[in-house]
Amino acid sequence: MMKVVRTVAELREWSRKFRADSQSGVERPIGLVPTMGALHAGHASLVRAAAKACPGQVAVSIFVNPTQFGPSEDFARYPRSFDADCALAEAEGANVIFAPSVEEMYPAGAATFVEVEGLSDRLDGDSRPGHFRGVATVVAKLLIAAEPDLAFFGQKDAAQVAVLRRMVADLRLGTKIVVCPIVREADGLALSSRNTYLSAQERRRALVLSHSIRRVEELAGTGERRADALIAAARAVFAEEPAVRVDYVELVDWSALLPVDMATPGTLLAVAAWVGTTRLIDNTIIV
Amino acid sequence: MMKVVRTVAELREWSRKFRADSQSGVERPIGLVPTMGALHAGHASLVRAAAKACPGQVAVSIFVNPTQFGPSEDFARYPRSFDADCALAEAEGANVIFAPSVEEMYPAGAATFVEVEGLSDRLDGDSRPGHFRGVATVVAKLLIAAEPDLAFFGQKDAAQVAVLRRMVADLRLGTKIVVCPIVREADGLALSSRNTYLSAQERRRALVLSHSIRRVEELAGTGERRADALIAAARAVFAEEPAVRVDYVELVDWSALLPVDMATPGTLLAVAAWVGTTRLIDNTIIV
Repeated sequence: MMKVVRTVAELREWSRKFRADSQSGVERPIGLVPTMGALHAGHASLVRAAAKACPGQVAVSIFVNPTQFGPSEDFARYPRSFDADCALAEAEGANVIFAPSVEEMYPAGAATFVEVEGLSDRLDGDSRPGHFRGVATVVAKLLIAAEPDLAFFGQKDAAQVAVLRRMVADLRLGTKIVVCPIVREADGLALSSRNTYLSAQERRRALVLSHSIRRVEELAGTGERRADALIAAARAVFAEEPAVRVDYVELVDWSALLPVDMATPGTLLAVAAWVGTTRLIDNTIIV
Repeated sequence: MMKVVRTVAELREWSRKFRADSQSGVERPIGLVPTMGALHAGHASLVRAAAKACPGQVAVSIFVNPTQFGPSEDFARYPRSFDADCALAEAEGANVIFAPSVEEMYPAGAATFVEVEGLSDRLDGDSRPGHFRGVATVVAKLLIAAEPDLAFFGQKDAAQVAVLRRMVADLRLGTKIVVCPIVREADGLALSSRNTYLSAQERRRALVLSHSIRRVEELAGTGERRADALIAAARAVFAEEPAVRVDYVELVDWSALLPVDMATPGTLLAVAAWVGTTRLIDNTIIV
């Protein structure tokens, strides 16, 4: 039976109980799926992956983290659907939901932040100053609290993955970051809690992101490796939908998030664009 | 028998073995004493306190942390005495020494820092920009690696204690910070690894720090609570030793490190001064 806990102390106690069992012979990893709630099929795939790798020992955190939103961003209206989230998480194999208050994660007078220098200013970090500082800070706290062996994140947030891999390595956290593939609607749109913001017209226009990604994958499939050509191909697709404003189209090394001239296996082609007042992202890893 | 480990993985394994034993009935805390080596009787008192509170489960880390030294500071010449440190730690009850390389604590490309905003710019942080960022970063890594219940620090580094208490609360680390009293030479000089830098003449002059502290304690003992009067008393003692250059004399709240007008029980009176090229600190907690 899945339980809901609200405090770091309870989450740590949950994790350490399993850790002790594991030390005494039963060797199973502890899994954490950090989310901001508003769970969709993308999150479901993360919980499913966690339940497969860490049967019986999966925590899902649901916390809309204020410090990763800019002052003019959508913290207040970010979708919240706690009861449905719990039902989805349980159906996919979660064993505990960690749903702390803001005060539990940021006690009165909180002044401590985790900074991943360099990486945090690239891609979405360039467009959203302070975003990755907030992400790194809250994920550090979640990993410190849950002490998981594995933590599951979606490839859709590819820059976030790079920031968190760097953070986990640097802070010597005992957690491995597991990245799960992007989950898409039937027509290609990458799943995002923010898709609910889109009007019917915007929903149609938003397909330009996944179309640009697919076009890049096709071109790369023909052997094209030049950054200029791959980026131009993506931009040409965006040009067909002028109502969508491109934020970035970049071909970068997935570790350093720095631009590369030529794609190699593992290179990240990432796009971000504004569809009305909603900012969406998508990406592909060159194979 | 005390052992020496060099990697975070070994230290974590050591800690988790005890944690598992503890979960299965033996309830003893795990203790960590973070040091930069060059151990003296002050460190000995920390290890002794740890051995008393955490018998059989005491780790002492020895790591001269480069990121807490400024570019013109004494990282390169900071005293190193590893074999003697191990002997002292073992004699006082340490069970494991954690002595990592710089690369083990800061892997290639390390870019992640822990910032405690506000507090890190006060007292020694004001005089040594970046110092407390380095301290918070390395102590976070040590606490993440060792997962101790208790971590032992000296009151001599009083501003450091305030920064680390804030950090531990904010990052939701499962560690309690234990503060041990300042240990002094017979003539009053607070023990410091940096005392070895002092010439015989400087060693005599350095007594002005502890004399100023004693003068404040005497005055406070008469009931004086005004910051102006307590600070003036300390400065008057320093004025008698003009070869020693005062860095700061401050009466502050020990949590926020912000100046107060009136001392109350727990208020921190802290001094820092240059004796030749050696910067020394001392303090007292108003009772």
